[in-house]
Amino acid sequence: MSKVTFLPSNISVESLPEENILRTAMRAGVHINASCGGAGVCNKCRVVLEKGGLKGEAFADGAWKACSAYPVTDVEVRVPVESEMDRRVLSRPLARRAASWIETRQGPSFKPHPMVIKEVLNLPRPGVEDGISDLGRLQREFSNSAFHGVMVDVDSRVLFDLPGAMRARDWVVTASLMDSIPNVRRLIRVEPGDESARHLAAAFDIGTTTVSGQLLDLLTGDVLSEASNYNPQVSYGEDVISRMEFARKKEGLDILQKKIVQCLNDLIDEICSSAGRSKDSISIMTVAANTVMTHLLLGLDTKYLRSHPYVPVATHFPPVRASEIGVSLPAHVRMFPSSCVASYVGGDITAGVVGVGINHHPELTLFIDIGTNGEIVLGNQDWMACAACSAGPAFEGGGIMHGMRATTGAVEVAHIHPETFEPMVLTIGGKKAKGICGSGIISLLAGLFMAGAIDQQGRFRRDLKTERIRPGKEGWEYVVIDEEATATGKDIVFTEADIENLIRAKGAMFAGYLTLLESVGMGLEDLERVILAGNFGSYLDLEQAVTIGFLPDIPRERFFFAGNSSLLGARAMAVSKDAMKEIDACAKMMTHFDLSGNPRFMEHYVSSLFLPHTDAGLFPSVRVG
Amino acid sequence: MSKVTFLPSNISVESLPEENILRTAMRAGVHINASCGGAGVCNKCRVVLEKGGLKGEAFADGAWKACSAYPVTDVEVRVPVESEMDRRVLSRPLARRAASWIETRQGPSFKPHPMVIKEVLNLPRPGVEDGISDLGRLQREFSNSAFHGVMVDVDSRVLFDLPGAMRARDWVVTASLMDSIPNVRRLIRVEPGDESARHLAAAFDIGTTTVSGQLLDLLTGDVLSEASNYNPQVSYGEDVISRMEFARKKEGLDILQKKIVQCLNDLIDEICSSAGRSKDSISIMTVAANTVMTHLLLGLDTKYLRSHPYVPVATHFPPVRASEIGVSLPAHVRMFPSSCVASYVGGDITAGVVGVGINHHPELTLFIDIGTNGEIVLGNQDWMACAACSAGPAFEGGGIMHGMRATTGAVEVAHIHPETFEPMVLTIGGKKAKGICGSGIISLLAGLFMAGAIDQQGRFRRDLKTERIRPGKEGWEYVVIDEEATATGKDIVFTEADIENLIRAKGAMFAGYLTLLESVGMGLEDLERVILAGNFGSYLDLEQAVTIGFLPDIPRERFFFAGNSSLLGARAMAVSKDAMKEIDACAKMMTHFDLSGNPRFMEHYVSSLFLPHTDAGLFPSVRVG
Repeated sequence: MSKVTFLPSNISVESLPEENILRTAMRAGVHINASCGGAGVCNKCRVVLEKGGLKGEAFADGAWKACSAYPVTDVEVRVPVESEMDRRVLSRPLARRAASWIETRQGPSFKPHPMVIKEVLNLPRPGVEDGISDLGRLQREFSNSAFHGVMVDVDSRVLFDLPGAMRARDWVVTASLMDSIPNVRRLIRVEPGDESARHLAAAFDIGTTTVSGQLLDLLTGDVLSEASNYNPQVSYGEDVISRMEFARKKEGLDILQKKIVQCLNDLIDEICSSAGRSKDSISIMTVAANTVMTHLLLGLDTKYLRSHPYVPVATHFPPVRASEIGVSLPAHVRMFPSSCVASYVGGDITAGVVGVGINHHPELTLFIDIGTNGEIVLGNQDWMACAACSAGPAFEGGGIMHGMRATTGAVEVAHIHPETFEPMVLTIGGKKAKGICGSGIISLLAGLFMAGAIDQQGRFRRDLKTERIRPGKEGWEYVVIDEEATATGKDIVFTEADIENLIRAKGAMFAGYLTLLESVGMGLEDLERVILAGNFGSYLDLEQAVTIGFLPDIPRERFFFAGNSSLLGARAMAVSKDAMKEIDACAKMMTHFDLSGNPRFMEHYVSSLFLPHTDAGLFPSVRVG
Repeated sequence: MSKVTFLPSNISVESLPEENILRTAMRAGVHINASCGGAGVCNKCRVVLEKGGLKGEAFADGAWKACSAYPVTDVEVRVPVESEMDRRVLSRPLARRAASWIETRQGPSFKPHPMVIKEVLNLPRPGVEDGISDLGRLQREFSNSAFHGVMVDVDSRVLFDLPGAMRARDWVVTASLMDSIPNVRRLIRVEPGDESARHLAAAFDIGTTTVSGQLLDLLTGDVLSEASNYNPQVSYGEDVISRMEFARKKEGLDILQKKIVQCLNDLIDEICSSAGRSKDSISIMTVAANTVMTHLLLGLDTKYLRSHPYVPVATHFPPVRASEIGVSLPAHVRMFPSSCVASYVGGDITAGVVGVGINHHPELTLFIDIGTNGEIVLGNQDWMACAACSAGPAFEGGGIMHGMRATTGAVEVAHIHPETFEPMVLTIGGKKAKGICGSGIISLLAGLFMAGAIDQQGRFRRDLKTERIRPGKEGWEYVVIDEEATATGKDIVFTEADIENLIRAKGAMFAGYLTLLESVGMGLEDLERVILAGNFGSYLDLEQAVTIGFLPDIPRERFFFAGNSSLLGARAMAVSKDAMKEIDACAKMMTHFDLSGNPRFMEHYVSSLFLPHTDAGLFPSVRVG
């Protein structure tokens, strides 16, 4: 690690492994003009090396391209005057620094102890004196082994391959046993030879907008590979309501079911192929999804979920043979859906809560899942309350002109120069920009607001001396990246309509947790931890999120970022049957508050449609300019 | 009931309801020439009414046709001299009477207490204060009801129809729950409204040669309808060995599996249609079958069952979703195969043993199943030993030129006049003869032997003054029914080759139970009961069966006839879960003796290839002439 000192501001930070100077600067809160996201195209991020050594790309005049330069020793680099911010900016208190990343919090690590175990059995050969049936021989061995006293229930399909499997490797077999009712294990598979090392799981998070999957090694709990894609049901409706409407049409449910299954099948192929493993090694599949997605996946009628009093077919689901619903996995693989709480608080939330470990700690925790629906959970190891905020998909890039998921090429963070309004943007992977993801959107809104480019209602100031703010086809807009530096060949812009959507979304979230806190007789000051979950990239700027009134203005050390907690929960379920039980228990213990008809929620919502909030007292640390 | 007195022998018996004079005579041991089986064709069974009244068919001269005449009062009928047997015949001791039917023994009646029960639930409607999921609502009701403390495990398929079913009849539903592990019930079906009265079972006996099925009412245990047919696998091999050979060919197993399933499907349609009930009302299916038939039905590999040390894939089978193996029953219906003991003692035997109740009594019982394989069980409530005799299919009509199953048109009993060698035959249903069934074959052999028409080696005497014994195309034969009186338009004959087959079959059976008795240190005299099972008609003449050395020469009151005991067991399994458990327990407790390599068995077998036996001391009551 090298120390990087930025001049003239004289700010020093330790660089991270494989972190270029531009990213180090962003982390340090040092503005360097960079309008291509760090893709090496715009040639604006010039820095001059004053001391130490850099490797990477240099200009003909000896200056370095910050997005392509890496320190080899401690270095001092000077940011040219065209990039440098006014020193007054730096005089702001630390909490107001341009960049303040939220600490990533790993959930509890679940010891591998999965629902399905593999047992290697070395069976005695049959003979005249021992002519017991193949199945009887296996069961006798179970009762002689660690399974003494445990009933072994047999899946009838096991019988088909049994005689061949037992004789193929000289009476050594690997039996897969699934936990069932207490003291009962279900024999679901018998493989020839010792196959105990081939013991994988496929864990999925099925969001309304995106689907993510991981291939896991059940012996170590390690993630072998990961892949994600848009939920193809999106073509039939952006949100759960429109999906349910479509499901009521003739064949509608069937179409939606087949679409999501196809998506899972593609992702299974992808994670297996990228890990170089076979689908045949998969022993278990888990799915964390909201109530509607779980219904559609299983092919369950959502008619009564759609209308008052919003009754799901089920909230706790029996395991389902994955192949029975069309998933192209071997017949022995069971799919375990995570348990849901109610119509609008689903298995993604329960999985997330257990994935991050709220149920294991005494601290009062606010869990915020920034998905399409914006669910929040408040509680600790003793109690939990939950609600859905109907925030809409803005944080996932939905309803945002150039919004996109947090994948390669997405603008994930931006800083706006308070005088020139020039941006410093970074894209995920340092690739040419394709759009803007959730953290980038929050970053842009906060940056433009802090730079004074937009007012408290979210409107662009029309009188600024910059060409980046201009009337566009769909109203006023800010040009984030010029067409020559994008992957699309078109300007990537951030519009007033985008800002309006974003303010509504953050307003719904803020009103949601304020109302939930009030409902249990508490306030923002009582929060001991705030855990953010959602499909953000690696950068979510905490100060910026507080600045726009999305996150509460409480001590910053209480905030943690959990990433895709639903997938984390699905992974925990796959690796540990304890996690599966905990998710089930959480779903049972959570009290669900319906905000849709709550007058306090409506009041809070209206008050929150302002930057940061109509009640400035709620955001004492936010002062613009 | 009327008293019928036959003259000149002056033998009187009470007639049975709807029994014609010919059948009464057969039962009484009175010979009347009747060479069309009682079909009303041969016009030989003339009797003269001397006292009382008859109704039915009379000849022009006032004589009556015995096969069409029924008593309306007590009657005296004179048998004409051409039919009448020599008085010396009548002077034989009672035990040597021409006809002595074995008493039919009903098994224990199992109280209806099936594996699947139907529970009617009257559910509270959902509302704002009670928005629990549909499944949760159902489960809550279970724990409030009689199922308190019982875990209800849910079949995931139930969820598909659940919302519709719950709302269709104003929240009244009928839940079908299947017994599973102790204290666990599996929810397999939810129907709208009160459907508790529609609760049927389909019970099957799958024999190597014939398949029989019954539709049962699970509320009463009553048989609603019954049907049977040949096992269509017969085209691929007469016996289990040749079936297994065929199963090793490419697609062979699949063909055999599909054939038997098609047969079951046809029989299901037939029993449902004749009872006027819907397949949809069936809650459970049971199958009693030998080990090979069970394997072929489930599609299990019989390769290792075929060769030393003859290991089955399984002997105790988990329940299988009937539709999963191709049976056209609704998806909720599980098929329960009866448990087998070993390769050649199968679930037909265990079902039979429990069906007739051997496991409930202290008496030492010999159970003889006269099917293709000839299995025997020896034991009582405390212990059981079993063996297979490899008797061959002669008793089922296999390998007999005009052999057939015991159905309408089969010669089921015969008596041979000791001087004229004219037959008195009866067919099942009094229809024109199509062939000869098991009881008829035994009856013919014994009759011809007693009349002196064949010698102790089973060869026809060539010097008798009768045209009925003649050299035929396939060696010497006896004409049972002339072509003009048969349904086939051809003579029905009984050949020396038939006799040879029959002697081998009876010899194997006799040697089998003698060896089994010896193996446990007992003798024929220790037998307290002998229960005969098999697809015989209503007439099996005990004396005749002893005469040919098929049944042991012990006190006649110890013999009972159970009919198709395998089907009886399948019915017991369907009606009562206790019976199912008992069958399983019997399969576990039975000691299997392999006779194939037993030198004592071979000795006994060779000694038994004689009428009745080379050791006349074993058959003290049998004296010919």
